[in-house]
Amino acid sequence: MLLVRDVRMLDGRITDLYVSDGVFVSEGDASDEVIDAERSLAVPGLCNTHTHAAMTLLRGVGEGMELDRWLNEAIWPLEGRMKKRHIEAGMRLACLEMIRTGTTLFNDMYFMEDEMTSVVRDMGLRAVLGEGLIDGFDMEKLEREQRRIPGVNAEILKRGGGLVMPSMSPHAVYTVSQEGLRWSREEADRIGSGTHIHASETEKEVHDWIERTGRTPVRYLDDLGLLQKNTVLAHAVHLSDGDISLIAKRGASVSFNAISNMKLASGGPMRFRDLADAGTNVTIGTDGAASNNSLDMFQAMKVSSLLVRNRYGASSVPPGEILRCATVNGYRALGIKGGLIEEGYAADMLLVDPKHYSMTPGHDLVSNIVHSISPEAVRFSMVNGVVLMKDGHVPDAERIVDMAQEAAMDLIQEGV
Amino acid sequence: MLLVRDVRMLDGRITDLYVSDGVFVSEGDASDEVIDAERSLAVPGLCNTHTHAAMTLLRGVGEGMELDRWLNEAIWPLEGRMKKRHIEAGMRLACLEMIRTGTTLFNDMYFMEDEMTSVVRDMGLRAVLGEGLIDGFDMEKLEREQRRIPGVNAEILKRGGGLVMPSMSPHAVYTVSQEGLRWSREEADRIGSGTHIHASETEKEVHDWIERTGRTPVRYLDDLGLLQKNTVLAHAVHLSDGDISLIAKRGASVSFNAISNMKLASGGPMRFRDLADAGTNVTIGTDGAASNNSLDMFQAMKVSSLLVRNRYGASSVPPGEILRCATVNGYRALGIKGGLIEEGYAADMLLVDPKHYSMTPGHDLVSNIVHSISPEAVRFSMVNGVVLMKDGHVPDAERIVDMAQEAAMDLIQEGV
Repeated sequence: MLLVRDVRMLDGRITDLYVSDGVFVSEGDASDEVIDAERSLAVPGLCNTHTHAAMTLLRGVGEGMELDRWLNEAIWPLEGRMKKRHIEAGMRLACLEMIRTGTTLFNDMYFMEDEMTSVVRDMGLRAVLGEGLIDGFDMEKLEREQRRIPGVNAEILKRGGGLVMPSMSPHAVYTVSQEGLRWSREEADRIGSGTHIHASETEKEVHDWIERTGRTPVRYLDDLGLLQKNTVLAHAVHLSDGDISLIAKRGASVSFNAISNMKLASGGPMRFRDLADAGTNVTIGTDGAASNNSLDMFQAMKVSSLLVRNRYGASSVPPGEILRCATVNGYRALGIKGGLIEEGYAADMLLVDPKHYSMTPGHDLVSNIVHSISPEAVRFSMVNGVVLMKDGHVPDAERIVDMAQEAAMDLIQEGV
Repeated sequence: MLLVRDVRMLDGRITDLYVSDGVFVSEGDASDEVIDAERSLAVPGLCNTHTHAAMTLLRGVGEGMELDRWLNEAIWPLEGRMKKRHIEAGMRLACLEMIRTGTTLFNDMYFMEDEMTSVVRDMGLRAVLGEGLIDGFDMEKLEREQRRIPGVNAEILKRGGGLVMPSMSPHAVYTVSQEGLRWSREEADRIGSGTHIHASETEKEVHDWIERTGRTPVRYLDDLGLLQKNTVLAHAVHLSDGDISLIAKRGASVSFNAISNMKLASGGPMRFRDLADAGTNVTIGTDGAASNNSLDMFQAMKVSSLLVRNRYGASSVPPGEILRCATVNGYRALGIKGGLIEEGYAADMLLVDPKHYSMTPGHDLVSNIVHSISPEAVRFSMVNGVVLMKDGHVPDAERIVDMAQEAAMDLIQEGV
């Protein structure tokens, strides 16, 4: 992080960053845009490595139910009725929230992701969109998905303009057949994308999977070739020592979802320190707003820090490590050179007001970003050198909120 | 919570609350002030039942140290150098942060509280200020404090204008002698105040105390008469079943400090559900910003909810229960009729914009307040019918931040 005076960019890459006492990074004079950022704090944009953005439309639904009842009685019936207009309204609301709270890149898993590409492009965020694959061990369903999903990905690539990319996103070992998982991996290799999958989220999942296959979900995924450098394992709470060695050896990334896991009562045994010490690329995610209930990555960093300390001790994780998980590690997991403010890295950046109360005093600015900042202190947000939020304002915010509220009411009433 | 049109008050009590479909509460026509609150959401002001407000000046100091080293090497040396100007700057910054994040009443324990009374009055918050008593088992020191503290309390009463009140605040069983604790109780009775004490914060404290006295800190405090209706036990993480029965039987309140306890790695075994089920008045506190690192009670509610669910299950605590802990239970603990929006209750209230992204969609407004709200959505804050924040702005915010930054630098440099 740096106190900057102004920022110059060319073609979405940082070229010059003027710090208050001189030039920090320079690559010539040509500049697309100059932002007056006198004494702002430049912070890399945050990367949310696991979410279901459109579920923001379901924020607060079925509050307080256990995971099984919550999915079966509250979430799935509503999702079953969701049409494009609902998903679009949820995605737009999610993008607004992510921009306002410092996210510049997110890794999504949901449905109609081809249709959502233009929404994300319009909002300006960088994203990896994964069309969720669930075959329920039904080979006919898998065949239909094998015919459908490549088209979805082609459409994302076509509309994404290099900022929005597809991924293969089989839901989890207990919802996708071996054939479906293997095909996901092959298809990812074919299109050069990563894979994104829920793994070892609950004790029950791991217990059931060992009983059914004799292997943990992580080892099972590895046997099918899914543990690779561009794989993101979401949650990965309940891990054996063997799982941890395997993840590290394969170079797969883990998305730590502290808030969602605590809220759904399965976060206690998470093994952040063991994973990171084994050399795993640990990143941070929010999960969907239905189980968080927000997409605020500052809050996700703070609760991650709290949960690690509560388990491993008060000095077990310095704030700088948490910040790296939420920035450069996230970008790395998604195969993007970003998350650092350095020459040649993507110009995905926040400008923070160091004179906001929540950043004062400035004894330890990194700790303030991780443990005390209010999103209100983020004044500018830019992705690929384009400004998405200017002085705290995201264009069209009121209209997006109104549309989301209407779509949510429409969705609920359809079921009445 | 209510969707309101406008709010009328008389002498700091709510008289009329016009909801969108008619009058909710009315006690006559006379009104001091009318706030145009068309379709705002009226939420009771939040009560922070355990903090050391002036420590906001030490936010981020000694990040990542274990509790013992953190206190001995980072915090205490700086506190030893703190002069009135530092404490005042920290208190003002804390009040700014508390107002911006929805707190209307706080229960403080620190030093120079008599001097701080005018600062708090000036900022407009309601508060209970407790001059910290530490005698270190030194009878001469206790005598000096016995001569000094009654004067501090008299001064708080005199300057407090009924909004700022004193409490007796012996620090903890391991820092205050039996004589000091007993005297605190007698003095509290004499001036009609409550008592505020740290209790059973760490496993070590409880273990050491049982070894030293044969009793848990809670039982020991009860034997000295300190467990009463107007007692606030801060932290109270490591409790036996006997402790819980005793607290409930005496009607003492507990201040649950989830964030601080997790950050200092001692929050896991907290017994929220057992305490509440035994009938204890459970409330929520942030602790000081040095160990949180913010005073945001919305965040404190969310992390409280997460920690309870993580331990007791996803359906173990409805959001409404958490909101009550942070409002009416807190007011009750401090002996003030407030924390509910009802006729005759203190006019300490927030007006929230239900159209903020963080409150959208409105499937469950109480859950949104507890789990997703950004403090930015709080537009108005009032205490005793006086508006402290208008449309998101707290008067003098910039000057308060500048003063705090200067005082913090001055404090650090004095030690160089």
